[in-house]
Amino acid sequence: MDFTIRAATLEDCKDISRMILELAEYEKVSDQIKITQRDLEQDGFSKNPFFHGIIAEVPEHLKSRDGHTKVGYSLYFYTYSSWKGRAVYMEDLYVMPEFRGKSIGKALMAKVSQLGLAAGCTQLNFTVLDWNKSSLDFYRKQGCWDVTSDLGYHCMRCEGDALEHLAQGDL
Amino acid sequence: MDFTIRAATLEDCKDISRMILELAEYEKVSDQIKITQRDLEQDGFSKNPFFHGIIAEVPEHLKSRDGHTKVGYSLYFYTYSSWKGRAVYMEDLYVMPEFRGKSIGKALMAKVSQLGLAAGCTQLNFTVLDWNKSSLDFYRKQGCWDVTSDLGYHCMRCEGDALEHLAQGDL
Repeated sequence: MDFTIRAATLEDCKDISRMILELAEYEKVSDQIKITQRDLEQDGFSKNPFFHGIIAEVPEHLKSRDGHTKVGYSLYFYTYSSWKGRAVYMEDLYVMPEFRGKSIGKALMAKVSQLGLAAGCTQLNFTVLDWNKSSLDFYRKQGCWDVTSDLGYHCMRCEGDALEHLAQGDL
Repeated sequence: MDFTIRAATLEDCKDISRMILELAEYEKVSDQIKITQRDLEQDGFSKNPFFHGIIAEVPEHLKSRDGHTKVGYSLYFYTYSSWKGRAVYMEDLYVMPEFRGKSIGKALMAKVSQLGLAAGCTQLNFTVLDWNKSSLDFYRKQGCWDVTSDLGYHCMRCEGDALEHLAQGDL
């Protein structure tokens, strides 16, 4: 299929925001989304951005049923492992359902990997929901391995009042 | 106990490197450490650093048995959630064994939380090994929750030849 992968710009934030919601609906967590188009514009496209993005785009004549030409995206940022050094983290990888099975997801992932390697990263990291078997199969086929299952790593989080208390050091 | 928490500088990389190795020995993975003092200097203290660090330091008269005054550290960096926005990730939190139980770890974690909140972050994230019950208990007491156990998130990774192949898009 005819598509291009390119760096996201400020003008893509409306579509990224739309696709974040679509992905959240698929993952059954749309009530959890607090991020707006404006947040994306501010956090990704000002000085010292918190993330970078890439967009999969199809030509006008291949647009989606509801008129979209931006049909997939990935957000990523650079992280660090105190064992292995520079790493790239893929926060989201999404392709609209009607454009799946055309290697767009693989092309997005390839691009994030290329950018990571070019920046001196030795690892690509991301998280997957354990019930999402089709994604897990897709990633395993790409040579990825499950750090949680194989090494026992658990993701931990602190937020809201607990984070405020933690910051005050008074727990 | 008399100690201070402060931002790490280039001159701390030797001690951070030493403590990364001590932590890896505790986690039984010291053969995995590829990071040197020089990597830390380059990756954390040049333009667009991949991480930031804080150091716990004791006065000279309280130095460790082998003469160290830098007795704990944390590495952190900023990340992004496409659901919740800005987040801070704590890569390591370490206090030398002979200085534990004196609230130094809690003070380091409080500092990372303060820095995260000041940067507009709503989450503090990190990973813990599931066999490390004392750390898990410590973190739970601070109001942290286990995203892997509660929501089913698994950490995935691609590295080495698999990452090169992924970047070439030819798998």
